Amino acid sequence: MSKELILQKIEQAAKILNEKDIDMWMTFVRETGNIKDPMIDMLVGTTATWQSAFIITKTGDTHAIIGSLEYENMKAVGTYKNIHPYLKSIKEKFLDVINTIKPNKIAINYSRNSSLADGITYGLYLELLDHFNGTDYASKLISSEEIVAALRGRKSKAEIDIMKEAIVETLKIFDEVTKYLKPGITEKQVAEFVQDITEKRGFGLAWDKEYCPSVFSGPNTAGAHSGPTDRVIEQGHVINMDFGIKYKGYCSDLQRTWYMLRPHEDKAPAEVQRGFDVIKDSITRAANAMKPGKKGFEIDEVTRNYIQISGYEEFPHGLGHQVGRLCHDGGCLMGPKWERYGNLPYMELEESNVFTIEPRLTIENYGIATIEEMVAVTKDGVEWLSERQRDIYLVR
Amino acid sequence: MSKELILQKIEQAAKILNEKDIDMWMTFVRETGNIKDPMIDMLVGTTATWQSAFIITKTGDTHAIIGSLEYENMKAVGTYKNIHPYLKSIKEKFLDVINTIKPNKIAINYSRNSSLADGITYGLYLELLDHFNGTDYASKLISSEEIVAALRGRKSKAEIDIMKEAIVETLKIFDEVTKYLKPGITEKQVAEFVQDITEKRGFGLAWDKEYCPSVFSGPNTAGAHSGPTDRVIEQGHVINMDFGIKYKGYCSDLQRTWYMLRPHEDKAPAEVQRGFDVIKDSITRAANAMKPGKKGFEIDEVTRNYIQISGYEEFPHGLGHQVGRLCHDGGCLMGPKWERYGNLPYMELEESNVFTIEPRLTIENYGIATIEEMVAVTKDGVEWLSERQRDIYLVR
Repeated sequence: MSKELILQKIEQAAKILNEKDIDMWMTFVRETGNIKDPMIDMLVGTTATWQSAFIITKTGDTHAIIGSLEYENMKAVGTYKNIHPYLKSIKEKFLDVINTIKPNKIAINYSRNSSLADGITYGLYLELLDHFNGTDYASKLISSEEIVAALRGRKSKAEIDIMKEAIVETLKIFDEVTKYLKPGITEKQVAEFVQDITEKRGFGLAWDKEYCPSVFSGPNTAGAHSGPTDRVIEQGHVINMDFGIKYKGYCSDLQRTWYMLRPHEDKAPAEVQRGFDVIKDSITRAANAMKPGKKGFEIDEVTRNYIQISGYEEFPHGLGHQVGRLCHDGGCLMGPKWERYGNLPYMELEESNVFTIEPRLTIENYGIATIEEMVAVTKDGVEWLSERQRDIYLVR
Repeated sequence: MSKELILQKIEQAAKILNEKDIDMWMTFVRETGNIKDPMIDMLVGTTATWQSAFIITKTGDTHAIIGSLEYENMKAVGTYKNIHPYLKSIKEKFLDVINTIKPNKIAINYSRNSSLADGITYGLYLELLDHFNGTDYASKLISSEEIVAALRGRKSKAEIDIMKEAIVETLKIFDEVTKYLKPGITEKQVAEFVQDITEKRGFGLAWDKEYCPSVFSGPNTAGAHSGPTDRVIEQGHVINMDFGIKYKGYCSDLQRTWYMLRPHEDKAPAEVQRGFDVIKDSITRAANAMKPGKKGFEIDEVTRNYIQISGYEEFPHGLGHQVGRLCHDGGCLMGPKWERYGNLPYMELEESNVFTIEPRLTIENYGIATIEEMVAVTKDGVEWLSERQRDIYLVR
């Protein structure tokens, strides 16, 4: 991220600290070249080798306590007002800085629920507690998850504009896949075709190359999060693709569904059409239910129930996640109350959150119908960021 | 890493578990797309979204307990013999697997000292403890740092051969810098020249682009770990560069020193020559002291003392770190007993460890003299992996 964007995010963070009445937020890290706290790019803009603390206070003040060898670099990066280099041990300067802040609460980079707010490793946490020996700071520690959820989740207009561009570019690539699809090619060939175009246009992939895109074809296809296989695409298959790009630092994440006509067909069979329509309608229902203050699981339920009532099995994942600089971003998740999702489904939608809506159902003997759209939460509803898929794409 | 290399490493891990009498080693992770455990590439070879446990036992058995959506992908990757997918919560299958192992000790991915063995985040650790509720497994948890240090530190012949190639390619680039250097160019220009060549040859950078290479020129230059600046290189400057490439997955990390002659000079001034010679000799002394069983700080002391006795200030960092797939790799560090290095300087050198040796000293009015060589620890000494810098490089 550019220095300007980081300084904007730090300013936004200070406002969130005021809103939540937290005096200071500290991101405590080491050897970010080996394991990188997910917030470092947004909050710091450079690496750290030895134990380092990046502190933002409610008053908007910032402190970087870092190894002395990195002092010049930190000055050049220019994102922190006060830089405190140390040589042998961080402890003394670190406590000096905190003593001047006299914090009521210290939010740190840990969270049981949100991986984005959970950057401090357990061994490093024990080190931190040691530094706090003889003080009462350990008792003031709280999770930064609410701060991170707000900071990453509340997108600026500029951020949403970039994501709209990313979506337009992504949907162009989906259109090219529509032209490329023909009987006899494999899922892997489709994926290579898509990755080639993406690279040529200078875009990144929104997630791991192994399954970006995922391509699913026909009955007996693999589940979501699987990579494309050598399975051959045939007439009578429902085909879908899950794909996103990284564009100017932001991700898109979309899915579309195709049907490959058999010789005698000029439209999809009734059961395929019905599956597609149920998915499309379930997305409309989710979007109609979305507004600030709703809890994530409430929206998931709307869609999950509708799909089951329509006679299909429930989908084995959440309805939609937030998107931003990372593909799985923000806090609140529109997902079911399953233990694996922690408290994320219990969090509330906020204005300017960007969500995917991505239900899925199985059409027996044909394949999987999925559509994934992207929306931004507005004051009283949603704005569609992606031009919706209204009809199943027919290919021969 | 390829499937074959991962399976080799898993086999090596099982041997290390036997050597240390530890029944099982578990790497517990989630959302590796947001924060990636440093061992995942070497031990698993794919990503994980929900809470996931990758278990290696003393008997060489392997278990992956993962979210059901990633079952197909994990099968395709093929690095784990037993795959246990779960839908709503990991707990039940997870405990089932551990119950069958009946471990005496459970090494997990946490360490106070080694960032490479410290991949479990604090929030996730609390989740793990919750899963262990009602069992006595929490009391069996130990750090995996010794296992990780051995597994990453003990290089195979194949690994060392790749690193030798990486070093040869890196030293070629240093030679090209010798031809490129002239008065009036800036540190940044040198860095761009080096990054251009690296990219053209299809190599990666061994560490963060901001300071790979670092280029330091003249008196009043920045400290190590600083990026190159707009400082202009002039006659009478000592210049040095810290640079490494990533080659077939392995890193090099080397430094060389130049002197830019003034019009009337055909060799370096006596004080520059002396500084260079002290650095060179201090490296010889370190290498002569290195052998299996020596502790990291003992080697650091040899060099640190020699440099101080020679009348220079001690260097503000460790003498040498291990190198491998990451630039800062392995466990044992040849560094001073400073708190910031934790227990790493107290660990012992082992056969087949690959270390840098990189002392530094300031030559007043001229700049910084540094040389960084790479060596492999042998049964009773070291093998030089890099062709040593014997003379200061003179440029005009």
